[in-house]
Amino acid sequence: MIDLRSDTLTRPTESMRAAMAHAEVGDDVYGEDPTVRVLEERVAGLFGHEAALFMPTGSMANVLAVRSLVAPGQEVLCESRAHIARAELGAHGAYSGITMRTWINARGQVDLPVIRDLFAPDMGPFFVPTAAISVENTHNFAGGAVLPLADLQDLREFATGVGAAVHMDGARIWNAHVATGVPLSEYGAVADVLAVCLSKGLGAPVGSLMVGSADAIAEARIWRKRMGGGMRQTGILAAAGLHALDHHVERLADDHAHARLLAEAAGTDPATVDTNIVVVERSDAAAFVAAAREGGVLVAPVGPTAVRLVTHLDITRDDAEKAASVFAKLA
Amino acid sequence: MIDLRSDTLTRPTESMRAAMAHAEVGDDVYGEDPTVRVLEERVAGLFGHEAALFMPTGSMANVLAVRSLVAPGQEVLCESRAHIARAELGAHGAYSGITMRTWINARGQVDLPVIRDLFAPDMGPFFVPTAAISVENTHNFAGGAVLPLADLQDLREFATGVGAAVHMDGARIWNAHVATGVPLSEYGAVADVLAVCLSKGLGAPVGSLMVGSADAIAEARIWRKRMGGGMRQTGILAAAGLHALDHHVERLADDHAHARLLAEAAGTDPATVDTNIVVVERSDAAAFVAAAREGGVLVAPVGPTAVRLVTHLDITRDDAEKAASVFAKLA
Amino acid sequence: MIDLRSDTLTRPTESMRAAMAHAEVGDDVYGEDPTVRVLEERVAGLFGHEAALFMPTGSMANVLAVRSLVAPGQEVLCESRAHIARAELGAHGAYSGITMRTWINARGQVDLPVIRDLFAPDMGPFFVPTAAISVENTHNFAGGAVLPLADLQDLREFATGVGAAVHMDGARIWNAHVATGVPLSEYGAVADVLAVCLSKGLGAPVGSLMVGSADAIAEARIWRKRMGGGMRQTGILAAAGLHALDHHVERLADDHAHARLLAEAAGTDPATVDTNIVVVERSDAAAFVAAAREGGVLVAPVGPTAVRLVTHLDITRDDAEKAASVFAKLA
Amino acid sequence: MIDLRSDTLTRPTESMRAAMAHAEVGDDVYGEDPTVRVLEERVAGLFGHEAALFMPTGSMANVLAVRSLVAPGQEVLCESRAHIARAELGAHGAYSGITMRTWINARGQVDLPVIRDLFAPDMGPFFVPTAAISVENTHNFAGGAVLPLADLQDLREFATGVGAAVHMDGARIWNAHVATGVPLSEYGAVADVLAVCLSKGLGAPVGSLMVGSADAIAEARIWRKRMGGGMRQTGILAAAGLHALDHHVERLADDHAHARLLAEAAGTDPATVDTNIVVVERSDAAAFVAAAREGGVLVAPVGPTAVRLVTHLDITRDDAEKAASVFAKLA
Repeated sequence: MIDLRSDTLTRPTESMRAAMAHAEVGDDVYGEDPTVRVLEERVAGLFGHEAALFMPTGSMANVLAVRSLVAPGQEVLCESRAHIARAELGAHGAYSGITMRTWINARGQVDLPVIRDLFAPDMGPFFVPTAAISVENTHNFAGGAVLPLADLQDLREFATGVGAAVHMDGARIWNAHVATGVPLSEYGAVADVLAVCLSKGLGAPVGSLMVGSADAIAEARIWRKRMGGGMRQTGILAAAGLHALDHHVERLADDHAHARLLAEAAGTDPATVDTNIVVVERSDAAAFVAAAREGGVLVAPVGPTAVRLVTHLDITRDDAEKAASVFAKLA
Repeated sequence: MIDLRSDTLTRPTESMRAAMAHAEVGDDVYGEDPTVRVLEERVAGLFGHEAALFMPTGSMANVLAVRSLVAPGQEVLCESRAHIARAELGAHGAYSGITMRTWINARGQVDLPVIRDLFAPDMGPFFVPTAAISVENTHNFAGGAVLPLADLQDLREFATGVGAAVHMDGARIWNAHVATGVPLSEYGAVADVLAVCLSKGLGAPVGSLMVGSADAIAEARIWRKRMGGGMRQTGILAAAGLHALDHHVERLADDHAHARLLAEAAGTDPATVDTNIVVVERSDAAAFVAAAREGGVLVAPVGPTAVRLVTHLDITRDDAEKAASVFAKLA
Repeated sequence: MIDLRSDTLTRPTESMRAAMAHAEVGDDVYGEDPTVRVLEERVAGLFGHEAALFMPTGSMANVLAVRSLVAPGQEVLCESRAHIARAELGAHGAYSGITMRTWINARGQVDLPVIRDLFAPDMGPFFVPTAAISVENTHNFAGGAVLPLADLQDLREFATGVGAAVHMDGARIWNAHVATGVPLSEYGAVADVLAVCLSKGLGAPVGSLMVGSADAIAEARIWRKRMGGGMRQTGILAAAGLHALDHHVERLADDHAHARLLAEAAGTDPATVDTNIVVVERSDAAAFVAAAREGGVLVAPVGPTAVRLVTHLDITRDDAEKAASVFAKLA
Repeated sequence: MIDLRSDTLTRPTESMRAAMAHAEVGDDVYGEDPTVRVLEERVAGLFGHEAALFMPTGSMANVLAVRSLVAPGQEVLCESRAHIARAELGAHGAYSGITMRTWINARGQVDLPVIRDLFAPDMGPFFVPTAAISVENTHNFAGGAVLPLADLQDLREFATGVGAAVHMDGARIWNAHVATGVPLSEYGAVADVLAVCLSKGLGAPVGSLMVGSADAIAEARIWRKRMGGGMRQTGILAAAGLHALDHHVERLADDHAHARLLAEAAGTDPATVDTNIVVVERSDAAAFVAAAREGGVLVAPVGPTAVRLVTHLDITRDDAEKAASVFAKLA
């Protein structure tokens, strides 16, 4: 089967496995895992931030990143289909006790006029103040859409002016970087804290990082343990992440090319495909999923009338062409 | 001073005080306060629901009403400036652990096409499902706007169809009822649970009620105690509420007339004034508030460019006319 | 019926009702209720603290008092049958997210050697530090037992030495004061924050206060609103509290005498009755409760083998003697 | 340095690394990792339970195990120095909202008479009922003490009789099993749910499992994702766990022998050393730690007058003898 359900499905390559097998390790709860330290410092540096913290999942990285900015009784603003709103099982409310309000944009974009209007200044202890604004780049449920740097810079300027922080869910920031050529440090410059993921397009089996100030990371380290994320010899996993940073970033361009190929075949406008995700609108989503499976291709329904195709490390050019031919028949 | 900051400012009348002084009481934690029982049954009946529960505040009534419908890990949809989002200090996140997403409507109205799009069906344990949709009638921060019954009925039909519940924040449902003539029972028919308030336009010193099914109310009684709302001889307060229901509902029409008078004087289109709240848009909100105070009128800023005027039981026709003349000079 | 189930059952007297009926009021959410202010200042002064805050219930006062001292991830130590552990429906965990550990003392007393052993210093972000130690005076479920001042002073000295705060659940501190003659200010001196109640022995229908530093109270005011305790014209209730402080404190000595009378009749050692609560150990608790009811006396089971009798404002000498004769027959 | 601070410090052996490098993997969030499935089924089987769930840490396994038994508003009873009380940063309160009460036993043992007394039946919505009793076997902060099976069986019988569940923190259950010869299934039989750990004595780098009924595990799978524990190709880690089960269980007897050796040298009664943990009582704990470090041995202070020595996979007989000679000089 050609599995296009998600880029989380990638399996470690042989050379990644070798890197893991030879990783130097220590007890990371004690801060003694040398490979984790190298990874954390490297990722912090890539984004121009002071520090980073390895996490078991992107969800935990987002939850701890947002809570570093937003206290119970305060709110975060985000786009209505942001991963933090839709796909983390309500953890920001259930575990962090924060309030969320949303703007709505079909492409998951920053809509600054609306955000300005939503923004709630601190008017004293009668109202919920906006402590942070969250953006997702690329935006998963908006089809892997890239957020233009200029928009992020404008948002950052607005946020700074009103005293709000910016959180970036950068689970797929690598895809944005490769698709646009914008350096990671420029994305880092427009956010107070980011969450970035190693186990999606980059192909590591496990791991995400929260990136931010040294203070925020020091506090997040405590909350990570409280949340059950204080793992031990994580150098094994960090080694996979380092390997991915060395070998799997630039190749994301292939995934993006494959995604455009699939979009064309499936009758989706390739201009809507910024990176490695294609959303196919089909009134018969369930039937489409079943038919694709018949043809040897696994895809995921993401709503009653939408199907998501995701390209990734384990999808070769050949796989993409075969899948395209299946979709072409169904289109 | 003529105090138009809020309709929560009303002081009990002499006859209301007398009613309170003579109230029969018991320990309501034991369910033994006869006056509370009468009030709860009467309010439940007005809205055509099985049961009601007396609460110390409208905030607690909303928090327990929403949590009766929405569990941690689920979400409620509401308009972006709903009282539950903006003015309950984040309790729905901080204390109930629920997620919130918002649609945006300047008049606080039901926007069914957008709600349909926001609505998240239960797609299994990867996503946050929409458990309830909340509406506020009248909508405080949208200037006391009434939600048309037809819109509420359409929302109810949609919600029922998709398996979502409807919560109505009816803190000022009495104003909607008087402004439109729609029976309270018809408003009750479009919601699974309501929160209604006695201490705003109705003029009671303290008290709100959650209204819903017998099961929901039985469970809310426990959560009310957990939340610190299990008061004792509350018949004193319930008596004020019963008095208000007898004497202060129909007279809300006066408040509405006064509000239109103020709107005209302040240069606000009276067509935007459905009930007892006027929002005056002024680029110099703070200066306007100060100047009004000079003129003997207290008003409240509700943002950098907006001032809110609220009429209520303690504002006579004469007060309204005096305030209008002050606003006319400032307009 | 002679109702000995709880001292929460008291109904306001005629003169208390008159005080309520004539109370000067304002909107307490705006801090404008003059009667509430008088009550808060008076109660703060009685305990020698800077400030106090009116609350709808003793549970909310305890919850906000403890959370002012203990953050999520920290712990409070208390006796195993403390009201905060047993009778607030788990709010300290469910709403404040704090950890609790307990020492065990049949009379609810301070057991300093055990507390020393339980006490957890802050050893860095691997362990839960003890932020506060809570005592209950008088101790409800230990039969209204008084905590000797010397023990409280020793605890305070220990706590100060190790950097822990002390919380006193003083729901019935008035009873301790009257039973021992210890001034309220001396009880106030051994705690950082207290919760005291007006609606138990003092006979007010509704109301408790948190007492503490100005900073703690300012922050608690916000959390009170978040928790749904921000009521409006509460001067009505505060007036009852002021009346109770004037007229119902010293008379608690009568309740204590009545309790000893009941204890003797019921076969309980009067030496175990410090104040207004008698715990009768009976293997047939349910049958005892039923038989007492037959005799016209209501009492409450507080476990399979324990029945609680509580004297209060509504129990006259005559009532107490009648009840005693009923218990004498059952003993 | 000979590192005796904790058995979490173990590094994977070469053969364990090889097992990890060759593990078959899939996306475990989708339930598609074959190695994880094998591990989960094997561990469930060892304890005679229906199902198990792989977790990033023992803390998360405990948190989700306890919350599967105890809802907000209910309580768990545990010994005062239980890991769930002392060393999980308050997560059971902060994240699960549950109440905790404790009994006190210097050896961390089940004290059934006291537990009977603490146990709170469900007496209706005024009190916090005991939903579960938690035991820790072996008990870390009581020096690795084993809980005798007979005591656990008596507890189980009591708990079943009163309708309470039993949670076992079995982070070091393997040590108890090896020290006593009691089959794991017998330990499994006395608990409704267990948390067991692979990354302590067993030497895996990362991973714990919650073990329980199929229903409890299915629900925990959702909460695991909400808590940020839904990792992807965890077969890499599970392979280490399977290897550890094959090769590192019986050898724990060596760790136990080494611990007794250390105890004797350090002047601790070896009769208090049930397994791999030695607690040395020293009034000069900090100085002892420093002196040991001078001698090439790392040990951990666990209080102002207590030092903990832990033997594990990376401590050879030779290491133990060297460390013993260092302690002998300090004793």
